[in-house]
Amino acid sequence: MHRTYSLRQSRAPTASEIENPPPPVSSTKANRLFGKTSFGHAFRKQTAGAFGPDLAKKLSQLVKMEKNVMRSMETVGRERMEVAQQLSHWGENCDDDVSDVTDKLGVLIYELGQLEDSFVDRYDQYRVTIKSIRNIEASVQPSRDRKQKITDQIAQLKYKEPNSPRIVVLEQELVRAEAESLVAEAQLSNITREKLKSAFTYQFDALREHCEKMAIIAGYGKHLLELVDDTPVTPGETRPAYDSYDASKAIIQDCEDSLMTWVPSHAAVSSKLSTRARTLSQRRRNNISKNRGEGIDLAGQDQPMRGDRDSWVPAQQHPDYQQGEEEEEEDYEETEAIPQQHHPNGEPRRDDEKMQQLPA
Amino acid sequence: MHRTYSLRQSRAPTASEIENPPPPVSSTKANRLFGKTSFGHAFRKQTAGAFGPDLAKKLSQLVKMEKNVMRSMETVGRERMEVAQQLSHWGENCDDDVSDVTDKLGVLIYELGQLEDSFVDRYDQYRVTIKSIRNIEASVQPSRDRKQKITDQIAQLKYKEPNSPRIVVLEQELVRAEAESLVAEAQLSNITREKLKSAFTYQFDALREHCEKMAIIAGYGKHLLELVDDTPVTPGETRPAYDSYDASKAIIQDCEDSLMTWVPSHAAVSSKLSTRARTLSQRRRNNISKNRGEGIDLAGQDQPMRGDRDSWVPAQQHPDYQQGEEEEEEDYEETEAIPQQHHPNGEPRRDDEKMQQLPA
Repeated sequence: MHRTYSLRQSRAPTASEIENPPPPVSSTKANRLFGKTSFGHAFRKQTAGAFGPDLAKKLSQLVKMEKNVMRSMETVGRERMEVAQQLSHWGENCDDDVSDVTDKLGVLIYELGQLEDSFVDRYDQYRVTIKSIRNIEASVQPSRDRKQKITDQIAQLKYKEPNSPRIVVLEQELVRAEAESLVAEAQLSNITREKLKSAFTYQFDALREHCEKMAIIAGYGKHLLELVDDTPVTPGETRPAYDSYDASKAIIQDCEDSLMTWVPSHAAVSSKLSTRARTLSQRRRNNISKNRGEGIDLAGQDQPMRGDRDSWVPAQQHPDYQQGEEEEEEDYEETEAIPQQHHPNGEPRRDDEKMQQLPA
Repeated sequence: MHRTYSLRQSRAPTASEIENPPPPVSSTKANRLFGKTSFGHAFRKQTAGAFGPDLAKKLSQLVKMEKNVMRSMETVGRERMEVAQQLSHWGENCDDDVSDVTDKLGVLIYELGQLEDSFVDRYDQYRVTIKSIRNIEASVQPSRDRKQKITDQIAQLKYKEPNSPRIVVLEQELVRAEAESLVAEAQLSNITREKLKSAFTYQFDALREHCEKMAIIAGYGKHLLELVDDTPVTPGETRPAYDSYDASKAIIQDCEDSLMTWVPSHAAVSSKLSTRARTLSQRRRNNISKNRGEGIDLAGQDQPMRGDRDSWVPAQQHPDYQQGEEEEEEDYEETEAIPQQHHPNGEPRRDDEKMQQLPA
């Protein structure tokens, strides 16, 4: 990896690079007319998080940048499908074998484009989940601000009018604000972790499926190529007639079967840990579960929490919460809207609801 | 597949979709401000092949469209790297475990971006190879045109001045033109097939490597996530200290090792053919090789060919070849320029030279 744990810059060639030395840098990377970055993408990235709560700034940017990634992936998918059609279109006028094989290659490449497209849909689930971390961050900000504000007021009053009766009132308010803040911070911590895990699990699962399916297609593509008769002919010689329409169709059918029956549990690519990494990870997991199972009696602690939780309101309903720019707002609503699309058959696919709750 | 051999439109859900129902359509696909297609990409696609020889028109378009695909893939790669940095940047302010894991996830995602980037370089090799088919198509066009032109002239003369001595001269010229054309067509047929095979072999090999490596990264990413302590805490409770920097580093190292040692011969994803497809493909291969080995004595045929081949000139040097628009010209030169970059260590990576020859 280029950017490793040590951030060292040089890297040794991989085994595969030694077998097949890498090609030169792609010629498409030079000679750009309009610079590298799309105007819209740069705009979206730069304006993200410019308004809205400070705490959620970085994550707002991340969410916008992920939107850029998705738009670009979508373009790749769409352009792949166009390429597939053009390939088949070109092949039409060639000899029978080239015509049939290019048409079938077109089918495979079209499928690559469609896989890319459905990967974008699944990637969006990851993005939406990251968004819910941003939302909790945004909602915790006002409670921090409020606590700070009351503390400041008390300090000011104590300096100006040390005997003011408002100090007592404010101090009571501070206790309440602190309680609220404590709950909010615990929610932030819990939700961030749960969502982070589920977001990336979603992304990596989708990526694995996407990649394995693409690799399957690549394999069948190579089978197809074998049907092309590349024996050189001499001028005036005609090639034997092509009669393998059945063979190419059978290959496509096999490919379709492989894609149809692919399930995560039969994933071919494995990412095994070395003994050292496994031991270290195991130790961490043991620590986590030991801590989890340590059995402190929390029954007493729970009572006040429950009562307090009802007083907690989302960021938007806070009196001193200021809404950011238009686009941001729409975005926040988007997060709310999506779960509803999700439950047409009553199947809870995203677990927002249960995570909004504090542990009982 | 959506676009199968039968072009049927409905498709049954795949096994993986049954296990995990697909998510709704990505929210990023709606609400576009500037339409779906980049202006530059649409322009490139539409102008491609508008000038230049007719025969090479469709392939010229394909080459341009592939350029679009590559530019888009490049954007995905670059944006992924940006996302990786932003993720790590966000995590910095979080608790130790979240901070460490997001940083390491950033390393993995950055690597995904770099893989995308090197895939683009390899995809370019495919594109350059397809370009060489376009070039042979372009160079065959003038020889077809010339033959047609002479035939027309003879017909015209025979009608106007049946006794003109020019007829004999033209007829001799036609014989030469026909010989040239015969050679050119054989070259077209041979080069198209060889290049088609090598181009797609290159693409599919690169795709397979790319995909398997991405799947490996996805697997290690999931290992990393296990280091995040997502046990819910109650308000005021502190989490145990994070001590697994070694574990996360070991996971990254394992991932690096897996990527470094990946070679095509150990590819995990297989694309096995069913018995039927295998039998049919085998039959085709037998036919090809039977034909190849049938042993017609071509010794007599070869002599005139060799002599003629020297008189064959590339399209650009033909007297009646008209160069297309500027961009096209640059493109043709590009194809010529790349092999030179390729031979710094005298290693012939592209097999253009040997394929330009006719079979002996």
